[in-house]
Amino acid sequence: MKTVSSRDNAFYKELKALATSSQARRKAGRSLLDGVHLCQSWLDLKGLPAHCVVSEDALANPEVAGIVERVEAARGHVTALPEALFGAISQVEHGVNLVFVIETPSPALPQRLTVSAVLLDGVQDPGNVGSILRSAGAAGIRQVWCSPGTAFCWSPKVLRAAMGAHFVLEIFENADLPALARDAQVPVLATSGYAADSLYDPALDLSKPVAWVLGHEGQGVSDELLQLASRRVAVPHAGQVESLNVAACAAVCFFEQLRQLRQSRQQR
Amino acid sequence: MKTVSSRDNAFYKELKALATSSQARRKAGRSLLDGVHLCQSWLDLKGLPAHCVVSEDALANPEVAGIVERVEAARGHVTALPEALFGAISQVEHGVNLVFVIETPSPALPQRLTVSAVLLDGVQDPGNVGSILRSAGAAGIRQVWCSPGTAFCWSPKVLRAAMGAHFVLEIFENADLPALARDAQVPVLATSGYAADSLYDPALDLSKPVAWVLGHEGQGVSDELLQLASRRVAVPHAGQVESLNVAACAAVCFFEQLRQLRQSRQQR
Repeated sequence: MKTVSSRDNAFYKELKALATSSQARRKAGRSLLDGVHLCQSWLDLKGLPAHCVVSEDALANPEVAGIVERVEAARGHVTALPEALFGAISQVEHGVNLVFVIETPSPALPQRLTVSAVLLDGVQDPGNVGSILRSAGAAGIRQVWCSPGTAFCWSPKVLRAAMGAHFVLEIFENADLPALARDAQVPVLATSGYAADSLYDPALDLSKPVAWVLGHEGQGVSDELLQLASRRVAVPHAGQVESLNVAACAAVCFFEQLRQLRQSRQQR
Repeated sequence: MKTVSSRDNAFYKELKALATSSQARRKAGRSLLDGVHLCQSWLDLKGLPAHCVVSEDALANPEVAGIVERVEAARGHVTALPEALFGAISQVEHGVNLVFVIETPSPALPQRLTVSAVLLDGVQDPGNVGSILRSAGAAGIRQVWCSPGTAFCWSPKVLRAAMGAHFVLEIFENADLPALARDAQVPVLATSGYAADSLYDPALDLSKPVAWVLGHEGQGVSDELLQLASRRVAVPHAGQVESLNVAACAAVCFFEQLRQLRQSRQQR
């Protein structure tokens, strides 16, 4: 384990930039995972981080010590920082002062949509994006494609809300969603509160792969994608409330797909 | 329309307290609705506010002017504030500087659970509580009961996230959920990632009223309520992601109920 105690240390400066600037994260192709849960999930699902960074006091926490031990046993890099230096790199209040620096995964770009996927068209709130990733991961969907206007998936807020779902998904950012929809080999279903077709329409077969398009919190899916989609579907409502939160809508759609998939498997 | 231009005005001081202190809101039995959407929904669904407050510049906005006109036509109270004074009472950045002061609805307390309902057991995040209220309203559920540890439903953040769902729901705060579960006349279904029963179990009939229990973001539903519930149900997962966000879980449950209800109506 190394110790860094100067604010002028080059590695510490890099950490601080990664912690505070999404531009720095994109440029370096690196992200920060903050806290025990995310770091544990990374170790379980992806392996070693580029660096494991802890505050000196955090080493007394048994969960943190366990993670540090696993990283060191696998010959990974661990750096300890005094509390005063660590404060600037964690955004979690009352956190445990443990972060992983990781190389942001950049999975090979598929040519076309051939499996179940989620297309995020300008979803702006990091909490919504994180919740959608988490629901997609739980429902067994593997691919998430994001338009340029969607919140950056590897930001601390999205990572926190997704609770490790990132590590079981393939995430493609800055994707050309209209081109993807045009060439898709699976039905593209755009969600819209104004759609005439219901998610529960018996003619809508969700037991085969589909791509779900989810739109901006206020404006919804863009007109271009609504036109390009195979179908526009609405979650039917029973009340006077005009629409669902986009992450709630996503969860309802993904799990209706899971329900139909399970039912069709049981019937075979 | 009255104009208030002194920071020492008693009504302005009350406004400021309501805007900044949840204790003041509870004590006064009043809440603030911030922005065009919430105020419009209140007018449509509930009628006049106790007061309509606008900034002087906001009167130039046609949507705001329309709302002010409706309030004045119905002989409601409208007060205009200079921009400098309004700033302290709105929490919406880049908002339109329109708020309603309302008497916080306190619907008559039912004796028992006899209709479909949501029981929030320590749900802490205001965004989650708001999203759950919105989904409940959209799914046609009318009653929401909150444990003392749940986020205050009439806070600005919850109101914003629920997008007006408050006005079609009966919300009971500081409820004794264990007592309610004990005396319930409808099945009480506690959601838990560890439950053996699936939401999609064919034996689980959701075409009749049920009460959904949703728990704390980290710890889930309390052991006491898990024991008192008629059944514990899990949203089944297909992936390695360990759990859903509580608001996503709520949406999946509420809309599975709506789907079954619609299906049973079509079959009759």
